[in-house]
Amino acid sequence: MNLPALSFDQLRHLAPRALRRHIATDQYQGHTSGLGQGRVQANIVILPGDWADEFLRFCTLNRQACPILDITRPGDPLFRHLGEHVDIRHDVPRYRVYRQGELTEQPQNIKHLWRDDLVAFAIGCSFSFEQPLLEAGIDLRHVKLGRNVAMYQTDIDTRPTERLQGKLVVSMRPLKAADAIRAIQITGRMPNVHGAPVHIGDPRLIGIHDLGAPDYGDAVPLADDELPVFWACGVTPQAVVQASRPPLCITHAPGCMLVSDLHNHSL
Amino acid sequence: MNLPALSFDQLRHLAPRALRRHIATDQYQGHTSGLGQGRVQANIVILPGDWADEFLRFCTLNRQACPILDITRPGDPLFRHLGEHVDIRHDVPRYRVYRQGELTEQPQNIKHLWRDDLVAFAIGCSFSFEQPLLEAGIDLRHVKLGRNVAMYQTDIDTRPTERLQGKLVVSMRPLKAADAIRAIQITGRMPNVHGAPVHIGDPRLIGIHDLGAPDYGDAVPLADDELPVFWACGVTPQAVVQASRPPLCITHAPGCMLVSDLHNHSL
Repeated sequence: MNLPALSFDQLRHLAPRALRRHIATDQYQGHTSGLGQGRVQANIVILPGDWADEFLRFCTLNRQACPILDITRPGDPLFRHLGEHVDIRHDVPRYRVYRQGELTEQPQNIKHLWRDDLVAFAIGCSFSFEQPLLEAGIDLRHVKLGRNVAMYQTDIDTRPTERLQGKLVVSMRPLKAADAIRAIQITGRMPNVHGAPVHIGDPRLIGIHDLGAPDYGDAVPLADDELPVFWACGVTPQAVVQASRPPLCITHAPGCMLVSDLHNHSL
Repeated sequence: MNLPALSFDQLRHLAPRALRRHIATDQYQGHTSGLGQGRVQANIVILPGDWADEFLRFCTLNRQACPILDITRPGDPLFRHLGEHVDIRHDVPRYRVYRQGELTEQPQNIKHLWRDDLVAFAIGCSFSFEQPLLEAGIDLRHVKLGRNVAMYQTDIDTRPTERLQGKLVVSMRPLKAADAIRAIQITGRMPNVHGAPVHIGDPRLIGIHDLGAPDYGDAVPLADDELPVFWACGVTPQAVVQASRPPLCITHAPGCMLVSDLHNHSL
Protein backbone atom coordinates (compact mmCIF):
# COMPACT_ATOMS: atom_id res chain seq x y z
CA MET A 1 0.00 0.00 0.00
CA ASN A 2 1.12 3.52 -0.58
CA LEU A 3 -1.37 5.80 1.11
CA PRO A 4 -0.62 9.47 1.80
CA ALA A 5 0.23 10.38 5.42
CA LEU A 6 -2.66 12.03 7.26
CA SER A 7 -2.61 14.97 9.64
CA PHE A 8 -3.57 14.37 13.30
CA ASP A 9 -6.83 16.18 12.66
CA GLN A 10 -7.57 13.90 9.73
CA LEU A 11 -6.74 10.91 11.91
CA ARG A 12 -9.28 12.10 14.48
CA HIS A 13 -12.04 11.63 11.95
CA LEU A 14 -11.15 8.04 11.12
CA ALA A 15 -13.32 5.23 12.43
CA PRO A 16 -11.36 2.66 14.49
CA ARG A 17 -10.89 0.16 11.67
CA ALA A 18 -9.77 2.81 9.18
CA LEU A 19 -7.41 4.20 11.83
CA ARG A 20 -5.88 0.75 12.39
CA ARG A 21 -5.45 0.26 8.63
CA HIS A 22 -3.62 3.59 8.40
CA ILE A 23 -1.43 2.74 11.39
CA ALA A 24 -0.68 -0.64 9.80
CA THR A 25 1.01 1.14 6.87
CA ASP A 26 3.65 2.49 9.32
CA GLN A 27 2.74 6.08 8.39
CA TYR A 28 1.70 7.09 11.92
CA GLN A 29 3.79 6.42 14.98
CA GLY A 30 2.33 8.96 17.44
CA HIS A 31 0.09 8.70 20.50
CA THR A 32 -3.54 7.62 20.25
CA SER A 33 -5.08 9.94 22.85
CA GLY A 34 -8.16 11.50 21.25
CA LEU A 35 -8.12 9.09 18.31
CA GLY A 36 -10.45 6.19 17.50
CA GLN A 37 -13.68 8.11 18.06
CA GLY A 38 -13.96 7.23 21.73
CA ARG A 39 -13.53 3.50 21.36
CA VAL A 40 -11.71 1.34 23.91
CA GLN A 41 -7.92 1.57 23.78
CA ALA A 42 -5.77 -1.16 25.25
CA ASN A 43 -2.35 -1.65 26.83
CA ILE A 44 -0.43 -4.41 25.08
CA VAL A 45 1.90 -7.06 26.51
CA ILE A 46 3.24 -9.84 24.29
CA LEU A 47 5.15 -12.78 25.78
CA PRO A 48 6.39 -16.19 24.69
CA GLY A 49 4.76 -19.45 25.81
CA ASP A 50 5.46 -20.28 29.43
CA TRP A 51 5.84 -16.62 30.44
CA ALA A 52 2.45 -15.95 28.90
CA ASP A 53 0.88 -18.67 31.05
CA GLU A 54 2.39 -17.19 34.19
CA PHE A 55 1.47 -13.65 33.17
CA LEU A 56 -2.14 -14.72 32.74
CA ARG A 57 -2.12 -16.02 36.30
CA PHE A 58 -0.53 -12.76 37.49
CA CYS A 59 -3.24 -10.69 35.77
CA THR A 60 -5.97 -12.88 37.24
CA LEU A 61 -4.56 -12.35 40.73
CA ASN A 62 -4.16 -8.58 40.17
CA ARG A 63 -7.29 -7.82 38.20
CA GLN A 64 -7.64 -4.20 39.30
CA ALA A 65 -4.25 -3.32 37.77
CA CYS A 66 -4.46 -5.85 34.91
CA PRO A 67 -8.00 -6.14 33.56
CA ILE A 68 -7.64 -8.41 30.50
CA LEU A 69 -9.88 -7.40 27.60
CA ASP A 70 -8.69 -10.07 25.19
CA ILE A 71 -5.94 -12.65 24.79
CA THR A 72 -4.74 -14.31 21.60
CA ARG A 73 -4.14 -18.00 21.02
CA PRO A 74 -0.41 -18.86 20.89
CA GLY A 75 1.00 -17.81 17.51
CA ASP A 76 -2.29 -16.21 16.36
CA PRO A 77 -1.71 -12.47 15.75
CA LEU A 78 -5.45 -11.61 15.75
CA PHE A 79 -7.42 -10.36 18.74
CA ARG A 80 -10.76 -12.04 18.01
CA HIS A 81 -12.85 -10.09 20.55
CA LEU A 82 -11.68 -6.51 20.07
CA GLY A 83 -13.08 -5.84 16.61
CA GLU A 84 -12.77 -6.57 12.94
CA HIS A 85 -9.36 -7.88 11.89
CA VAL A 86 -7.29 -6.51 14.77
CA ASP A 87 -3.77 -7.68 13.98
CA ILE A 88 -1.27 -7.13 16.78
CA ARG A 89 1.70 -7.38 14.38
CA HIS A 90 1.10 -3.91 12.95
CA ASP A 91 -1.98 -2.20 14.45
CA VAL A 92 -0.12 -0.35 17.22
CA PRO A 93 1.65 2.90 16.15
CA ARG A 94 4.88 2.09 17.96
CA TYR A 95 6.13 -0.90 19.94
CA ARG A 96 8.82 -1.45 22.53
CA VAL A 97 10.86 -4.63 22.46
CA TYR A 98 12.58 -5.77 25.66
CA ARG A 99 15.08 -8.61 25.79
CA GLN A 100 16.08 -9.80 29.26
CA GLY A 101 14.35 -6.65 30.55
CA GLU A 102 16.41 -4.26 28.42
CA LEU A 103 14.81 -2.03 25.78
CA THR A 104 16.41 -3.05 22.49
CA GLU A 105 14.13 -1.70 19.77
CA GLN A 106 11.14 0.60 19.16
CA PRO A 107 9.74 -0.59 15.84
CA GLN A 108 6.57 0.50 14.05
CA ASN A 109 5.52 -3.08 13.50
CA ILE A 110 6.63 -6.47 14.81
CA LYS A 111 6.09 -8.58 11.72
CA HIS A 112 9.79 -9.49 11.79
CA LEU A 113 9.54 -10.62 15.42
CA TRP A 114 6.37 -12.67 15.29
CA ARG A 115 6.71 -16.30 16.40
CA ASP A 116 4.47 -19.31 16.81
CA ASP A 117 4.71 -19.24 20.60
CA LEU A 118 3.85 -15.55 21.20
CA VAL A 119 0.70 -14.66 23.10
CA ALA A 120 -0.67 -11.09 23.11
CA PHE A 121 -2.64 -9.56 25.98
CA ALA A 122 -4.91 -6.52 25.61
CA ILE A 123 -5.30 -4.85 29.00
CA GLY A 124 -7.87 -2.19 29.92
CA CYS A 125 -6.66 1.39 30.13
CA SER A 126 -7.82 4.43 32.08
CA PHE A 127 -8.53 6.29 28.80
CA SER A 128 -11.78 4.28 28.84
CA PHE A 129 -12.98 5.61 32.19
CA GLU A 130 -11.88 9.16 31.52
CA GLN A 131 -14.53 9.51 28.84
CA PRO A 132 -17.47 8.74 31.20
CA LEU A 133 -15.90 11.05 33.81
CA LEU A 134 -15.64 13.92 31.32
CA GLU A 135 -19.20 13.19 30.14
CA ALA A 136 -20.32 13.45 33.77
CA GLY A 137 -18.91 16.99 33.82
CA ILE A 138 -15.84 16.10 35.88
CA ASP A 139 -12.81 18.15 34.85
CA LEU A 140 -9.59 16.19 34.46
CA ARG A 141 -6.61 18.48 34.91
CA HIS A 142 -4.12 16.55 32.76
CA VAL A 143 -6.63 16.51 29.88
CA LYS A 144 -7.20 20.24 30.25
CA LEU A 145 -3.44 20.86 30.35
CA GLY A 146 -2.78 18.48 27.46
CA ARG A 147 -0.42 16.38 29.59
CA ASN A 148 -0.02 12.67 30.17
CA VAL A 149 -1.60 11.49 33.44
CA ALA A 150 0.74 11.39 36.47
CA MET A 151 1.72 7.86 37.52
CA TYR A 152 3.55 6.72 40.64
CA GLN A 153 5.03 3.54 41.98
CA THR A 154 3.48 2.78 45.39
CA ASP A 155 4.59 0.58 48.28
CA ILE A 156 1.57 -1.68 47.71
CA ASP A 157 2.65 -5.22 46.78
CA THR A 158 0.96 -6.95 43.88
CA ARG A 159 0.03 -10.59 44.40
CA PRO A 160 3.09 -12.45 43.12
CA THR A 161 3.49 -15.54 40.95
CA GLU A 162 6.75 -17.53 40.73
CA ARG A 163 8.68 -14.99 38.65
CA LEU A 164 6.35 -11.99 38.49
CA GLN A 165 6.21 -9.64 41.42
CA GLY A 166 6.48 -5.96 42.16
CA LYS A 167 4.75 -2.87 43.45
CA LEU A 168 1.45 -1.46 42.23
CA VAL A 169 1.70 1.55 39.90
CA VAL A 170 -1.17 4.05 40.21
CA SER A 171 -2.40 7.00 38.17
CA MET A 172 -3.46 10.14 40.06
CA ARG A 173 -6.13 12.69 39.22
CA PRO A 174 -6.74 15.74 41.48
CA LEU A 175 -10.48 16.14 42.15
CA LYS A 176 -12.71 18.21 44.37
CA ALA A 177 -14.45 16.07 47.03
CA ALA A 178 -17.85 16.02 45.30
CA ASP A 179 -16.24 15.02 41.99
CA ALA A 180 -14.09 12.41 43.74
CA ILE A 181 -17.23 10.84 45.24
CA ARG A 182 -18.92 10.73 41.82
CA ALA A 183 -15.76 9.44 40.14
CA ILE A 184 -15.58 6.57 42.65
CA GLN A 185 -19.16 5.59 41.84
CA ILE A 186 -18.67 5.86 38.06
CA THR A 187 -15.37 3.97 37.88
CA GLY A 188 -16.54 1.42 40.46
CA ARG A 189 -19.00 0.26 37.81
CA MET A 190 -16.18 -0.33 35.29
CA PRO A 191 -14.21 -3.31 36.60
CA ASN A 192 -12.68 -3.91 33.14
CA VAL A 193 -10.87 -0.55 33.35
CA HIS A 194 -9.27 -0.69 36.80
CA GLY A 195 -12.57 -0.15 38.67
CA ALA A 196 -12.80 2.11 41.73
CA PRO A 197 -9.74 3.96 43.04
CA VAL A 198 -7.31 2.13 45.33
CA HIS A 199 -6.60 5.22 47.45
CA ILE A 200 -7.75 8.76 48.08
CA GLY A 201 -6.09 11.50 50.10
CA ASP A 202 -2.69 11.39 51.81
CA PRO A 203 -0.19 9.98 49.24
CA ARG A 204 2.33 9.03 51.94
CA LEU A 205 -0.03 6.29 53.14
CA ILE A 206 0.71 4.36 49.92
CA GLY A 207 4.41 5.23 49.76
CA ILE A 208 4.28 8.29 47.49
CA HIS A 209 6.40 11.06 48.96
CA ASP A 210 6.35 13.72 46.25
CA LEU A 211 3.33 14.22 43.99
CA GLY A 212 5.46 16.68 41.99
CA ALA A 213 7.79 13.90 40.87
CA PRO A 214 5.77 11.15 39.17
CA ASP A 215 7.58 7.96 38.15
CA TYR A 216 5.79 8.00 34.78
CA GLY A 217 3.84 10.68 32.89
CA ASP A 218 3.61 14.36 33.79
CA ALA A 219 3.05 16.12 37.13
CA VAL A 220 -0.10 18.25 37.50
CA PRO A 221 -0.83 20.82 40.24
CA LEU A 222 -3.15 19.96 43.16
CA ALA A 223 -5.37 22.79 44.49
CA ASP A 224 -6.08 23.34 48.19
CA ASP A 225 -9.67 22.18 47.84
CA GLU A 226 -8.77 19.01 45.96
CA LEU A 227 -7.96 15.46 46.95
CA PRO A 228 -5.52 13.30 45.03
CA VAL A 229 -7.42 10.21 43.80
CA PHE A 230 -5.39 7.14 42.87
CA TRP A 231 -6.39 4.36 40.48
CA ALA A 232 -4.53 1.10 39.77
CA CYS A 233 -2.67 1.62 36.50
CA GLY A 234 -2.03 -0.56 33.47
CA VAL A 235 1.65 0.33 33.65
CA THR A 236 1.84 -2.09 36.59
CA PRO A 237 1.99 -5.29 34.49
CA GLN A 238 4.60 -3.79 32.13
CA ALA A 239 6.78 -2.69 35.04
CA VAL A 240 6.46 -6.07 36.72
CA VAL A 241 7.26 -8.01 33.55
CA GLN A 242 10.30 -5.89 32.70
CA ALA A 243 11.65 -6.29 36.24
CA SER A 244 11.47 -10.07 35.90
CA ARG A 245 13.54 -9.98 32.67
CA PRO A 246 11.92 -12.55 30.38
CA PRO A 247 13.95 -13.41 27.24
CA LEU A 248 11.45 -11.45 25.09
CA CYS A 249 8.64 -9.04 25.92
CA ILE A 250 6.94 -6.66 23.48
CA THR A 251 4.68 -3.81 24.61
CA HIS A 252 3.11 -0.72 23.05
CA ALA A 253 5.17 2.47 23.41
CA PRO A 254 3.75 4.81 26.13
CA GLY A 255 0.58 6.49 24.89
CA CYS A 256 0.62 4.57 21.60
CA MET A 257 -2.21 2.18 22.36
CA LEU A 258 -4.14 -0.40 20.40
CA VAL A 259 -7.47 1.14 19.31
CA SER A 260 -10.28 -1.44 19.36
CA ASP A 261 -13.82 -1.39 17.98
CA LEU A 262 -15.35 -1.73 21.48
CA HIS A 263 -17.37 1.12 22.94
CA ASN A 264 -16.14 2.48 26.26
CA HIS A 265 -19.62 2.20 27.72
CA SER A 266 -19.61 -1.53 26.97
CA LEU A 267 -17.04 -1.94 29.75
CA MET B 1 -53.20 -4.12 77.75
CA ASN B 2 -51.07 -4.76 80.78
CA LEU B 3 -47.90 -6.45 79.59
CA PRO B 4 -44.80 -6.69 81.78
CA ALA B 5 -41.95 -4.34 80.90
CA LEU B 6 -39.11 -6.06 79.03
CA SER B 7 -35.36 -5.69 79.43
CA PHE B 8 -33.37 -4.20 76.50
CA ASP B 9 -31.95 -7.63 75.82
CA GLN B 10 -35.46 -9.08 75.66
CA LEU B 11 -36.47 -6.25 73.32
CA ARG B 12 -33.59 -7.16 71.01
CA HIS B 13 -35.17 -10.53 70.39
CA LEU B 14 -38.55 -9.12 69.37
CA ALA B 15 -39.55 -9.13 65.72
CA PRO B 16 -40.44 -5.66 64.39
CA ARG B 17 -44.21 -6.03 64.79
CA ALA B 18 -43.95 -7.42 68.34
CA LEU B 19 -41.54 -4.60 69.19
CA ARG B 20 -43.97 -1.99 67.91
CA ARG B 21 -46.80 -3.57 69.92
CA HIS B 22 -44.68 -3.40 73.05
CA ILE B 23 -43.71 0.22 72.37
CA ALA B 24 -47.39 1.02 71.79
CA THR B 25 -48.11 0.10 75.42
CA ASP B 26 -45.89 3.01 76.54
CA GLN B 27 -43.65 0.66 78.47
CA TYR B 28 -40.50 1.48 76.49
CA GLN B 29 -39.31 4.97 75.79
CA GLY B 30 -35.63 4.39 74.99
CA HIS B 31 -33.59 4.45 71.78
CA THR B 32 -34.08 1.89 69.03
CA SER B 33 -30.46 1.39 67.97
CA GLY B 34 -29.87 -2.37 67.75
CA LEU B 35 -33.59 -3.16 68.01
CA GLY B 36 -35.99 -4.43 65.34
CA GLN B 37 -33.73 -7.23 64.08
CA GLY B 38 -32.02 -5.15 61.43
CA ARG B 39 -35.16 -3.79 59.79
CA VAL B 40 -35.42 -0.26 58.39
CA GLN B 41 -35.81 2.49 60.99
CA ALA B 42 -37.27 5.84 60.02
CA ASN B 43 -37.07 9.48 61.04
CA ILE B 44 -40.56 10.89 61.65
CA VAL B 45 -41.97 14.33 60.84
CA ILE B 46 -45.70 15.04 61.34
CA LEU B 47 -47.23 18.31 60.09
CA PRO B 48 -50.68 19.77 59.55
CA GLY B 49 -52.23 20.22 56.09
CA ASP B 50 -50.62 23.01 54.12
CA TRP B 51 -47.30 22.68 55.89
CA ALA B 52 -47.30 19.01 54.93
CA ASP B 53 -47.78 19.91 51.27
CA GLU B 54 -44.87 22.30 51.37
CA PHE B 55 -42.69 19.87 53.33
CA LEU B 56 -43.29 17.22 50.67
CA ARG B 57 -42.01 19.64 48.06
CA PHE B 58 -39.01 20.45 50.26
CA CYS B 59 -38.17 16.73 50.63
CA THR B 60 -38.52 16.20 46.88
CA LEU B 61 -36.08 19.03 46.22
CA ASN B 62 -33.64 17.76 48.86
CA ARG B 63 -33.90 14.04 48.37
CA GLN B 64 -30.40 13.18 49.57
CA ALA B 65 -31.15 14.63 53.02
CA CYS B 66 -34.86 13.73 53.04
CA PRO B 67 -35.46 10.37 51.34
CA ILE B 68 -39.17 9.69 51.95
CA LEU B 69 -39.95 6.05 52.65
CA ASP B 70 -43.68 6.50 53.21
CA ILE B 71 -46.25 9.22 53.70
CA THR B 72 -49.72 8.92 55.25
CA ARG B 73 -52.98 10.29 53.85
CA PRO B 74 -54.20 13.34 55.81
CA GLY B 75 -55.76 12.21 59.10
CA ASP B 76 -54.82 8.53 58.53
CA PRO B 77 -52.44 7.41 61.31
CA LEU B 78 -51.29 4.27 59.46
CA PHE B 79 -48.17 3.98 57.33
CA ARG B 80 -49.46 1.58 54.66
CA HIS B 81 -46.09 0.76 53.06
CA LEU B 82 -43.84 0.21 56.07
CA GLY B 83 -45.35 -2.99 57.43
CA GLU B 84 -48.27 -4.55 59.17
CA HIS B 85 -50.38 -2.09 61.15
CA VAL B 86 -47.79 0.63 61.67
CA ASP B 87 -49.66 3.28 63.68
CA ILE B 88 -47.80 6.55 64.04
CA ARG B 89 -49.91 7.57 67.05
CA HIS B 90 -48.09 5.18 69.40
CA ASP B 91 -45.44 3.09 67.60
CA VAL B 92 -42.53 5.44 68.33
CA PRO B 93 -40.98 5.13 71.83
CA ARG B 94 -40.86 8.87 72.46
CA TYR B 95 -42.06 11.90 70.50
CA ARG B 96 -41.18 15.58 70.51
CA VAL B 97 -43.92 18.15 70.05
CA TYR B 98 -42.97 21.61 68.76
CA ARG B 99 -45.40 24.54 68.69
CA GLN B 100 -44.21 27.60 66.78
CA GLY B 101 -40.80 25.96 66.77
CA GLU B 102 -40.59 25.56 70.56
CA LEU B 103 -40.35 22.14 72.21
CA THR B 104 -43.43 21.87 74.42
CA GLU B 105 -43.86 18.19 75.19
CA GLN B 106 -42.07 14.82 74.93
CA PRO B 107 -44.90 12.30 75.15
CA GLN B 108 -44.79 8.53 74.74
CA ASN B 109 -47.71 8.61 72.35
CA ILE B 110 -49.61 11.29 70.44
CA LYS B 111 -53.12 9.87 70.59
CA HIS B 112 -54.28 13.05 72.38
CA LEU B 113 -52.78 15.24 69.63
CA TRP B 114 -53.98 13.39 66.55
CA ARG B 115 -56.10 15.45 64.14
CA ASP B 116 -57.80 14.98 60.81
CA ASP B 117 -55.37 17.23 58.98
CA LEU B 118 -52.08 15.69 60.17
CA VAL B 119 -49.75 14.03 57.66
CA ALA B 120 -46.86 11.81 58.80
CA PHE B 121 -43.60 11.39 56.89
CA ALA B 122 -41.22 8.44 57.35
CA ILE B 123 -37.73 9.48 56.22
CA GLY B 124 -34.80 7.14 55.62
CA CYS B 125 -32.08 7.01 58.24
CA SER B 126 -28.38 6.19 58.15
CA PHE B 127 -28.93 3.22 60.51
CA SER B 128 -30.02 1.44 57.31
CA PHE B 129 -26.73 1.93 55.50
CA GLU B 130 -24.59 1.24 58.52
CA GLN B 131 -25.67 -2.40 58.49
CA PRO B 132 -24.38 -3.07 54.93
CA LEU B 133 -21.17 -1.19 55.80
CA LEU B 134 -20.60 -3.33 58.90
CA GLU B 135 -21.44 -6.46 56.90
CA ALA B 136 -18.78 -5.38 54.37
CA GLY B 137 -16.25 -5.45 57.21
CA ILE B 138 -16.01 -1.67 57.55
CA ASP B 139 -15.50 -0.59 61.17
CA LEU B 140 -17.68 2.31 62.32
CA ARG B 141 -16.05 4.08 65.22
CA HIS B 142 -19.22 5.41 66.88
CA VAL B 143 -20.73 1.91 66.81
CA LYS B 144 -17.57 0.46 68.34
CA LEU B 145 -17.54 3.18 71.01
CA GLY B 146 -21.28 2.86 71.66
CA ARG B 147 -21.84 6.53 70.83
CA ASN B 148 -24.35 8.37 68.70
CA VAL B 149 -22.97 9.36 65.29
CA ALA B 150 -21.42 12.87 65.09
CA MET B 151 -23.59 15.37 63.17
CA TYR B 152 -22.71 18.87 62.01
CA GLN B 153 -24.47 21.80 60.45
CA THR B 154 -22.68 22.76 57.23
CA ASP B 155 -22.68 25.95 55.16
CA ILE B 156 -24.35 24.07 52.28
CA ASP B 157 -27.77 25.55 51.50
CA THR B 158 -30.70 23.21 51.02
CA ARG B 159 -33.02 24.00 48.09
CA PRO B 160 -35.68 26.23 49.69
CA THR B 161 -39.47 26.35 49.37
CA GLU B 162 -41.54 29.38 50.43
CA ARG B 163 -41.19 28.85 54.18
CA LEU B 164 -38.70 26.02 54.46
CA GLN B 165 -35.01 26.74 54.13
CA GLY B 166 -31.81 26.14 55.99
CA LYS B 167 -28.40 24.50 55.92
CA LEU B 168 -27.65 20.87 55.27
CA VAL B 169 -26.87 18.75 58.35
CA VAL B 170 -24.39 15.92 57.79
CA SER B 171 -23.28 12.88 59.73
CA MET B 172 -19.55 12.08 59.81
CA ARG B 173 -17.79 8.74 59.99
CA PRO B 174 -13.96 8.51 60.08
CA LEU B 175 -12.72 5.89 57.59
CA LYS B 176 -9.42 4.73 56.14
CA ALA B 177 -9.16 5.59 52.42
CA ALA B 178 -9.83 2.05 51.17
CA ASP B 179 -12.91 1.76 53.41
CA ALA B 180 -14.08 5.23 52.36
CA ILE B 181 -13.90 4.18 48.70
CA ARG B 182 -15.94 1.03 49.40
CA ALA B 183 -18.41 2.94 51.59
CA ILE B 184 -19.01 5.42 48.75
CA GLN B 185 -19.81 2.56 46.38
CA ILE B 186 -22.06 0.76 48.88
CA THR B 187 -24.06 3.79 50.02
CA GLY B 188 -24.21 5.18 46.46
CA ARG B 189 -26.43 2.22 45.69
CA MET B 190 -28.87 3.16 48.50
CA PRO B 191 -30.58 6.39 47.36
CA ASN B 192 -33.41 5.83 49.88
CA VAL B 193 -30.97 6.22 52.76
CA HIS B 194 -29.07 9.39 51.85
CA GLY B 195 -27.05 7.72 49.06
CA ALA B 196 -23.37 8.50 48.53
CA PRO B 197 -21.51 10.96 50.77
CA VAL B 198 -21.76 14.68 50.06
CA HIS B 199 -18.19 15.39 51.11
CA ILE B 200 -14.93 13.70 52.01
CA GLY B 201 -11.78 15.19 53.49
CA ASP B 202 -11.24 18.77 54.69
CA PRO B 203 -14.27 19.71 56.87
CA ARG B 204 -13.62 23.46 56.47
CA LEU B 205 -14.62 23.23 52.81
CA ILE B 206 -18.23 22.65 53.92
CA GLY B 207 -18.18 25.09 56.84
CA ILE B 208 -17.27 22.72 59.68
CA HIS B 209 -14.50 24.25 61.80
CA ASP B 210 -14.19 21.81 64.70
CA LEU B 211 -14.83 18.09 64.26
CA GLY B 212 -14.52 17.79 68.05
CA ALA B 213 -17.67 19.87 68.59
CA PRO B 214 -20.56 18.29 66.67
CA ASP B 215 -23.89 20.15 66.58
CA TYR B 216 -25.76 16.90 67.27
CA GLY B 217 -24.64 13.50 68.56
CA ASP B 218 -21.24 12.61 69.97
CA ALA B 219 -17.70 13.44 68.82
CA VAL B 220 -15.44 10.55 67.83
CA PRO B 221 -11.66 10.67 67.32
CA LEU B 222 -10.15 10.79 63.81
CA ALA B 223 -6.86 8.90 63.27
CA ASP B 224 -3.98 10.22 61.15
CA ASP B 225 -4.62 7.67 58.41
CA GLU B 226 -8.34 8.36 58.23
CA LEU B 227 -10.53 10.70 56.20
CA PRO B 228 -13.71 12.22 57.59
CA VAL B 229 -16.59 11.10 55.33
CA PHE B 230 -19.80 13.15 55.41
CA TRP B 231 -23.30 11.99 54.50
CA ALA B 232 -26.47 14.06 54.25
CA CYS B 233 -28.39 13.52 57.49
CA GLY B 234 -32.08 13.04 58.29
CA VAL B 235 -31.75 15.66 61.01
CA THR B 236 -31.78 18.24 58.20
CA PRO B 237 -35.57 18.23 57.64
CA GLN B 238 -36.27 18.44 61.38
CA ALA B 239 -33.88 21.35 61.83
CA VAL B 240 -35.33 23.15 58.81
CA VAL B 241 -38.93 22.64 59.92
CA GLN B 242 -38.29 23.82 63.50
CA ALA B 243 -36.53 26.92 62.23
CA SER B 244 -39.59 27.85 60.17
CA ARG B 245 -41.86 27.61 63.26
CA PRO B 246 -45.04 25.96 62.01
CA PRO B 247 -47.96 26.02 64.49
CA LEU B 248 -47.50 22.30 65.18
CA CYS B 249 -44.76 19.82 64.33
CA ILE B 250 -44.28 16.38 65.88
CA THR B 251 -41.08 14.33 65.44
CA HIS B 252 -39.51 11.27 67.02
CA ALA B 253 -37.14 11.99 69.91
CA PRO B 254 -33.45 11.63 68.90
CA GLY B 255 -32.53 7.96 68.51
CA CYS B 256 -36.11 6.81 69.22
CA MET B 257 -37.05 5.85 65.67
CA LEU B 258 -39.99 4.14 64.06
CA VAL B 259 -39.06 0.48 63.41
CA SER B 260 -40.61 -0.79 60.16
CA ASP B 261 -40.96 -4.27 58.70
CA LEU B 262 -38.80 -3.41 55.68
CA HIS B 263 -35.45 -5.07 55.22
CA ASN B 264 -32.45 -2.74 54.98
CA HIS B 265 -31.29 -4.52 51.84
CA SER B 266 -34.61 -3.68 50.16
CA LEU B 267 -33.49 -0.04 50.05
